[in-house]
Amino acid sequence: MSPAGRRPGPSSTADDVLAAARELFAERGYQATTVRAIAAAAGVTPAMIHHFFGSKEKVFLAAARIPIDPDTVLAILLAGPREQFPERLVAAFGAAWRDERTGPALQSVLRAAVARPQEALTVRVFAEQFMLPRVSAYLGLPPTQVAAAVAMLLGRAVAAVLLGIEPLASASDEELAAYYVPALRAALSL
Amino acid sequence: MSPAGRRPGPSSTADDVLAAARELFAERGYQATTVRAIAAAAGVTPAMIHHFFGSKEKVFLAAARIPIDPDTVLAILLAGPREQFPERLVAAFGAAWRDERTGPALQSVLRAAVARPQEALTVRVFAEQFMLPRVSAYLGLPPTQVAAAVAMLLGRAVAAVLLGIEPLASASDEELAAYYVPALRAALSL
Repeated sequence: MSPAGRRPGPSSTADDVLAAARELFAERGYQATTVRAIAAAAGVTPAMIHHFFGSKEKVFLAAARIPIDPDTVLAILLAGPREQFPERLVAAFGAAWRDERTGPALQSVLRAAVARPQEALTVRVFAEQFMLPRVSAYLGLPPTQVAAAVAMLLGRAVAAVLLGIEPLASASDEELAAYYVPALRAALSL
Repeated sequence: MSPAGRRPGPSSTADDVLAAARELFAERGYQATTVRAIAAAAGVTPAMIHHFFGSKEKVFLAAARIPIDPDTVLAILLAGPREQFPERLVAAFGAAWRDERTGPALQSVLRAAVARPQEALTVRVFAEQFMLPRVSAYLGLPPTQVAAAVAMLLGRAVAAVLLGIEPLASASDEELAAYYVPALRAALSL
């Protein structure tokens, strides 16, 4: 048994890297933070970071504790006819929030981001660097338009899941899709 | 000068009423909480509550620190042609978040509601009791559909104001209206 008041699990190299990464990303932003700088701050070699994490993108995602892999989601969202993008987005969003692993993780990321500016930065970078540019290029639409559309679904998550506003919170995914798919289609001029 | 560690302004009768109201609303919900029960808990007469606040609704709004008077907003939203409801909703929402008095207050209410379940209850009651039933009756649409549409605008506030996601945060109200008005029209089948 571990002594009362202490948690098991000492600080590891990976934890050091993530702590250094969080600090540097928060201080300098995503673009200006290099793997070399993270390595220096964590007292490891850049090669070790590449070995453990693979890329700056992966370090960021691990540091941000965002439970969504952008490549996996984008592979689903951007595969298929452009006109069906709203259906795919609504379905992927609903599935991620309903999933027993990613759902609670998304909740805590979003709660933290809304409550603390430091945490908001990670959601912002995730949206601005990883998601919006690629969806915007795929649809051939301005990032503002894409961001406005995605924000509509974010609002559903906030209202239904985080705030529990009824009858939205109890509505089925099918009913919600009947409102959100046409709305996103109109917002995206599809 | 007041001693260090103590704030000026002693507890007043109004503060006692609001503290009692917050506790009772949180415990029993809005419907089951009476002015009589709030008065008893605060050690005042129901007549004093009616004199100071006017109604249970006003006590709730003061206790919840929501800087929006439902009657004032509804008077704007529900006046005019049904088909122009999306324009009025988008304009009223934008104005409330831009206003130098209500904007920051809305921000802090929403941040608190997302962070703490106790505070979420007040936003929930505001939406469920004061706003949705009347908008739903005016439009002749199910509350779920109305809530889904309003949540889309809430998402804009969360993404742009609370999280600061660009280029959404810097977009003009005019540009955003060009995406949100058609989206709300589609969501509301107008």
